Amino acid sequence: MQVVSELTDTSRLCLHTITTKPWPLEIAVEKYAAAGVHGITVWRQWLEGKSLEKSRRLISDAGLQVVSLCRGGFFPSANAGKRQEAIAENLRALDEAAAIGAPWVVLVCGADPSQSLIDSRQQIFDGISACLEQAQKLGVKLAIEPLHPMYAGDRSAINTMKQANDLCELIDHPFLGVAVDVYHVWWDPDLQKEIERCGRAGRLLAFHICDWHLPVEDLLNDRGLMGEGCINIRQIRGWVEQTGFTGFNEVEIFSNRWWKTDMDEFLAAILAAYRRHS
Amino acid sequence: MQVVSELTDTSRLCLHTITTKPWPLEIAVEKYAAAGVHGITVWRQWLEGKSLEKSRRLISDAGLQVVSLCRGGFFPSANAGKRQEAIAENLRALDEAAAIGAPWVVLVCGADPSQSLIDSRQQIFDGISACLEQAQKLGVKLAIEPLHPMYAGDRSAINTMKQANDLCELIDHPFLGVAVDVYHVWWDPDLQKEIERCGRAGRLLAFHICDWHLPVEDLLNDRGLMGEGCINIRQIRGWVEQTGFTGFNEVEIFSNRWWKTDMDEFLAAILAAYRRHS
Repeated sequence: MQVVSELTDTSRLCLHTITTKPWPLEIAVEKYAAAGVHGITVWRQWLEGKSLEKSRRLISDAGLQVVSLCRGGFFPSANAGKRQEAIAENLRALDEAAAIGAPWVVLVCGADPSQSLIDSRQQIFDGISACLEQAQKLGVKLAIEPLHPMYAGDRSAINTMKQANDLCELIDHPFLGVAVDVYHVWWDPDLQKEIERCGRAGRLLAFHICDWHLPVEDLLNDRGLMGEGCINIRQIRGWVEQTGFTGFNEVEIFSNRWWKTDMDEFLAAILAAYRRHS
Repeated sequence: MQVVSELTDTSRLCLHTITTKPWPLEIAVEKYAAAGVHGITVWRQWLEGKSLEKSRRLISDAGLQVVSLCRGGFFPSANAGKRQEAIAENLRALDEAAAIGAPWVVLVCGADPSQSLIDSRQQIFDGISACLEQAQKLGVKLAIEPLHPMYAGDRSAINTMKQANDLCELIDHPFLGVAVDVYHVWWDPDLQKEIERCGRAGRLLAFHICDWHLPVEDLLNDRGLMGEGCINIRQIRGWVEQTGFTGFNEVEIFSNRWWKTDMDEFLAAILAAYRRHS
């Protein structure tokens, strides 16, 4: 029988700043901390135009732990100059992560629809490889997040856990791992097996939750709150925890529907859904 | 080096009646034949309220070959009564296919978001198994069409060629095969391998083409015309033909965008795109 820990408290709850998109960093940090949220995954836009040191202190003074920095990646391009720019941008993301105390940068690996997936995948390999020396130097990992196959055209040519695991094995670097997001991988018949494989290799860094809400009105920004959709989050969390994962459950919801509502109410709904449906 | 046949003529071109949605069967048949299209895949709605024998004659008198009947499937439901109804509906589809001379019924296997994918997959197994005796008796096959993972919530729990092949092996019946649609499978890193496996087993029945047009505005009805998107149709067709496939290239495009245009112009655009981008 599968053992899943009960989420009786919020000690392992993390929110992505994008989830409460209307809130700038200061408000998000204050509200999360007041609600008992313990972790924060910071999206880079939330750091723009601010002192990184001040942002780091703001977060740690509130008692929040920085779980990850979102996001790097977007390596592939048919244009070689743009590929170099992407690598430079990822190096900057690593610097930012180090500055705010994020243990890894989550990678949306990217895809260029003007070229083949094979080419895009090779360029992802090259791009990640080019960043790992600096990653190790800074003590910041890179976390490949496989994206749902519906994003293979323009956002990521890495679309399954198997691909992410294969890529990690191929590159074989201690500062490379994987971020598992239920939204992207829930449908995959090989999911349990590949989560086990990822964990066994010591590469399962992060776990993102939300739900697959039907009908999907928008490819990008129509994610559901946990319990609003058909993903068996608890089962997947069980598979993740069976590998020894004790990290945060990160709530990452892009939702035009929820972003239109009052964010305090949304935060309360997240807390309730976290206990009930995660 | 990969050998792909050149599409210098329309002898292997088939259209799905849904592609030219505004045209009823009589018009579609007349227009397809006049354009030199040789095959027609009939969607069941186009047969409603008509004599099947008359429809069969209409199509064959025009010199068109019925390539398949679309569509059966939709087997899973948490409600046992509905599962029985689905099987009865599929048996009716088999009767219709036999009546119009379609060699197989294409299956959109179905999914019920109120239950697990494992349950839905078991019910697909059960539903297909329940139809195969009648299929063999009528001489009509069932073709499992794996659907893109973005439909795993509500339209099909069979989302990759590997799953379709596995299911065929498990059921192991001479009247069960697979329909490959580039829209659903183009992203899959195992695609070539699984197409080979399908062909080797003698199960590759049908090949559907269209394109992945960006951005995807609508999950269901925003398919692109060949050449409008990022699918390497020619490469996939090469893999399919290397298995010995000599069947039709079936153009199946659901597109709110194209359906708003003049259907004669759309048909002309399909013919041009077929030669240039397929």
